[in-house]
Amino acid sequence: MTRPDTPLLDQIASPADLRRLGDRDLIQVADELRAETISAVSETGGHLGAGLGVVELTVALHAVFETPRDRLIWDVSHQCYPHKILTGRRDRIRTLRQENGLSGFTKRSESPYDPFGAAHSSTSISAALGFATARDLGGMPEHGLGDAIAVIGDGAMSAGMAYEAMNNAGHLGKRLIIILNDNEMSIAPPTGAMSAYLSRLYAGAPFQELKAVAKGAVSLLPPPLQQGAKRARDMLKSLTVGGTLFEELGISYLGPIDGHDMEQLLAILRMVKSRAEGPILIHAITRKGKGYAPAESASDKGHGVSKFDVVTGKQKKAASNAPSYTSVFSRSLIAEAERDRTITAITAAMPDGTGLKQFAERFADRCFDVGIAEQHAVTFAAGQAAGGLRPFCALYSTFLQRGYDQIVHDVAIQRLPVRFAIDRAGLVGADGATHAGAFDVAFLANLPGMVVMAAADEAELMHMVATAAAHDDGPIAFRFPRGEGVGVEMPERGTPLEIGKGRIVAEGKRVALLSFGTRLEEVRKAAEALTRRGITPTIADARFAKPLDREMILQLAADHEALITIEEGAVGGFGSHVAQLLSDEGVFDAGLKFRSMVLPDIFIDQASPRAMYDVAAMNAEHIEAKVLDTLGIARLDQARA
Amino acid sequence: MTRPDTPLLDQIASPADLRRLGDRDLIQVADELRAETISAVSETGGHLGAGLGVVELTVALHAVFETPRDRLIWDVSHQCYPHKILTGRRDRIRTLRQENGLSGFTKRSESPYDPFGAAHSSTSISAALGFATARDLGGMPEHGLGDAIAVIGDGAMSAGMAYEAMNNAGHLGKRLIIILNDNEMSIAPPTGAMSAYLSRLYAGAPFQELKAVAKGAVSLLPPPLQQGAKRARDMLKSLTVGGTLFEELGISYLGPIDGHDMEQLLAILRMVKSRAEGPILIHAITRKGKGYAPAESASDKGHGVSKFDVVTGKQKKAASNAPSYTSVFSRSLIAEAERDRTITAITAAMPDGTGLKQFAERFADRCFDVGIAEQHAVTFAAGQAAGGLRPFCALYSTFLQRGYDQIVHDVAIQRLPVRFAIDRAGLVGADGATHAGAFDVAFLANLPGMVVMAAADEAELMHMVATAAAHDDGPIAFRFPRGEGVGVEMPERGTPLEIGKGRIVAEGKRVALLSFGTRLEEVRKAAEALTRRGITPTIADARFAKPLDREMILQLAADHEALITIEEGAVGGFGSHVAQLLSDEGVFDAGLKFRSMVLPDIFIDQASPRAMYDVAAMNAEHIEAKVLDTLGIARLDQARA
Repeated sequence: MTRPDTPLLDQIASPADLRRLGDRDLIQVADELRAETISAVSETGGHLGAGLGVVELTVALHAVFETPRDRLIWDVSHQCYPHKILTGRRDRIRTLRQENGLSGFTKRSESPYDPFGAAHSSTSISAALGFATARDLGGMPEHGLGDAIAVIGDGAMSAGMAYEAMNNAGHLGKRLIIILNDNEMSIAPPTGAMSAYLSRLYAGAPFQELKAVAKGAVSLLPPPLQQGAKRARDMLKSLTVGGTLFEELGISYLGPIDGHDMEQLLAILRMVKSRAEGPILIHAITRKGKGYAPAESASDKGHGVSKFDVVTGKQKKAASNAPSYTSVFSRSLIAEAERDRTITAITAAMPDGTGLKQFAERFADRCFDVGIAEQHAVTFAAGQAAGGLRPFCALYSTFLQRGYDQIVHDVAIQRLPVRFAIDRAGLVGADGATHAGAFDVAFLANLPGMVVMAAADEAELMHMVATAAAHDDGPIAFRFPRGEGVGVEMPERGTPLEIGKGRIVAEGKRVALLSFGTRLEEVRKAAEALTRRGITPTIADARFAKPLDREMILQLAADHEALITIEEGAVGGFGSHVAQLLSDEGVFDAGLKFRSMVLPDIFIDQASPRAMYDVAAMNAEHIEAKVLDTLGIARLDQARA
Repeated sequence: MTRPDTPLLDQIASPADLRRLGDRDLIQVADELRAETISAVSETGGHLGAGLGVVELTVALHAVFETPRDRLIWDVSHQCYPHKILTGRRDRIRTLRQENGLSGFTKRSESPYDPFGAAHSSTSISAALGFATARDLGGMPEHGLGDAIAVIGDGAMSAGMAYEAMNNAGHLGKRLIIILNDNEMSIAPPTGAMSAYLSRLYAGAPFQELKAVAKGAVSLLPPPLQQGAKRARDMLKSLTVGGTLFEELGISYLGPIDGHDMEQLLAILRMVKSRAEGPILIHAITRKGKGYAPAESASDKGHGVSKFDVVTGKQKKAASNAPSYTSVFSRSLIAEAERDRTITAITAAMPDGTGLKQFAERFADRCFDVGIAEQHAVTFAAGQAAGGLRPFCALYSTFLQRGYDQIVHDVAIQRLPVRFAIDRAGLVGADGATHAGAFDVAFLANLPGMVVMAAADEAELMHMVATAAAHDDGPIAFRFPRGEGVGVEMPERGTPLEIGKGRIVAEGKRVALLSFGTRLEEVRKAAEALTRRGITPTIADARFAKPLDREMILQLAADHEALITIEEGAVGGFGSHVAQLLSDEGVFDAGLKFRSMVLPDIFIDQASPRAMYDVAAMNAEHIEAKVLDTLGIARLDQARA
């Protein structure tokens, strides 16, 4: 693979090297950095568009501020690849998102230039305010703490958390620098009133004028002596062409500026560095995918890409054998909605990822993209349910954590029939620990009145969508993983399942394997291997973590020497509920070889899902080993568990 | 007790009766409603100031809108007592917050006039938008769905959730009415930039002018025919003297108006009812505690009161025998902070409730009240920890649910040493199910690297504060209940505990009672009763749900016929982790009478904490019965479990 020619970038071992270059050279560094980013992502796949949009910003920030002493915090941080290249990680940049490679996000353990990791959106202002506070209180005198800089996208501004942080920052008045990286795109086109507001801000301010303003700013540098604080403030004000909303919250607004104009960026950042008091927001306009035509012209601006050919932009996607769970969910929900006009769908800025884009195309007035706003999404759904609709709230497991209190307080306590479609349950692969859906079963199944299901395969998912649609007596959740189904035969339409009833998949002896979710496939494989050893396990698919199929589980315990549960979740979930049932019923009194296979007590770094489940010891061979170990049968071949 | 004379109010069986009265009579109804509210709360205790502040608003809203067809949603809803009196619940108003009595909050199951229950703050706009959506999609044609009206306090506007809802409401443009009840007080004096903004809004607008404006509005009613939408909008605009921030988010702003001036309220609400399009926010200025001098003059404006004498305002508080857990936490943290200048404290609008008020008085620059903003509170703490400080994030268990994703994503994954002081763990009494701290152990203890403790008594709490202060290797949480300690002897200062080590409280035989938290006192009582029966249980205090004291627990299992865990939390928590350990270690294989006493799978309504734990079957007699039942010993006396 040909690598781009990058003579200047090759001389940059760390950001300190940038600070020795002239402004013109920085422009060239940015160009080379863009080429290197495209080249690297073409080999690894990953987040492309976001990084390309902040190439100039990345160079300018590191050139002007004293990183890592000044803390630079990238919101979400999927735009951090250029930052990683500049901060001593260029030699590993082609290991991005791979096992034992660089994380696709910033990560404290990876570099001192990553002072605060991220992956979920809208956390950067809170974190930066924390650093600013630590600086002012002398938290880290030994290391030194300088400026705290948050770089946050316009999409992330729809989250309440960003507002909470601005509300607090405006109140505290500490020096804090917020770069609003406005590319009019989060993952999907942005939604919400804030987004419209930001558009109005720069609609009224042509870049020509802005350039002149920036030139003016340059001419004011270096600062004349004896220039008081008020003068500096006035100067900043004079650059402002809008931003009342931020000003009302106590945050100085500066912009909008052209985020791809290096001269302008350097001038503004230098002035802010030397003069800013209190919190200031710099509104930079950028283009997602900037400088790479295939990304700029793509509808998602090259948000997340597979490996691709740099010249043509054509992505290399592996052929799939079975439909993805997401697409099965999407089609099933549309089918249900065709028959029931009260069905609505809610997504928090993930119409593509959750498969609701197709639903929105079919039922525009019944699909709601609320922006990155999971708290509101859940209670909005609760309000809809109280008003007689049948809302499906489609969120990734990890993002559902953002709406937990609303699930408890607005949905469960009121027993409102909100349907939670929980995508990306279990381990997710290249996105790593921050995106794992490990905790949802534990935090949902102990809520009174909640029904919690997990689909064992894509046909089961169809049935669960139908089950949820038909269930009006309180909230119901169903989880399913990232990726493709197992290729089972699909029914024409889903059939509602009986609430709280599991199914026996195969009858066997001695040991019962009770699966909850898509480990069922691995359980089958383990059972085949065990059968070859003369042990034929019973296989059951629990379907429900709540309510449990008490009758089936107690029967399995009664009929077998050992009972082993398997789930793609942490302790506290399905297996714990089964243990509670068994202990309540006194099943352990006389002895039962009970084991609960759950995700281990570690955050597992990115790798292929299969490799991650190897780390978790939850693949077929581990299930087989667990059975043998539980039954007290030594394995003569290589034991791995 | 003398009841107030309320001749007009006596004729109001439901809001429909209000609509038959003239405006002058409505003023009198409000006066009588205020007197009745004061009288009722003097007998029951509860939230007084908030209700008194919205008496006129309550009357005016029910008089103008067609409740319950129009959905009136009270945010937090501790201000709903006057609303309950007007909506058919006056006969039970003196049972407020008592067992089998009226809830202190709105509750769907209690009345059709409570379309959406609440207790946590800032949910009302999301819920109202849900109703508006259901109305526009024809969700409840059989019942009819009219206007959706949210009444939200200024304090609640600091929460990101309110912003997320406004952002979405401004985008959707549906007709939606938001009453901003601005009394410059949430529970504590408000904090944050939004609060300052609201103050500026009405600082510039004297009520005299506003009255004139309202008069003008009246003269325009009833609406001339053929008046187009634009004219209506302009008219509304003309009433606006500020509110750019809301306008920028796509929400029409109207006000500020005098929330105690019935004529003005009626005029404005009637006009809004007949003319409003899209979302509109009415900014009403009220006084918390209005019309009752003892409340108006109190520093908390009579926020939460005990039973009191109406004439003097003097509250009847029971003498306490032991310090409250909250005050022990407060004193312990101050003592630690005296010795360690890096200790900081963060509260989300609860300086009184969490005991941080005293900390703030002693260390003003190290105490942060971020407003009702738990998401930000947690990540702000994470940022501080990353910057070298030792932050204590003090939240109620139930409100910690709001920051769950931040605990996972910003704290646990980054292994940052944030200290979580979790107050109001377990069942809390009069505040009922919405305030129960039932889920925290389950949702925290399965996070890798998290340390989770529960204090068995107030001396243990001192040690746990010291333990948390000393623990720099990742996050740590300690939980303690509402109310008074048990009166144990207090050490001079707390001593850090060894992480993951429990303690044996009493040596016994046959059965081991393994307590996590303050049920220890009930366990002791149960043990005494059992000893009288000839069974002397071993008693252990686990101290840690994570990491578990494996050695101690396995030894208890080995040495006893039965092992019973007890905790003030739902399944999935401490007992589930113990079960996981025991099953992993094969302890169940040969039989162990293991039981896990957890909160039952229901939301328990308000009552005294003791009565609530009776419902939960977790008092001494229930523990005794559980032991006897587990050991297979029949009780000859009245069996209650």
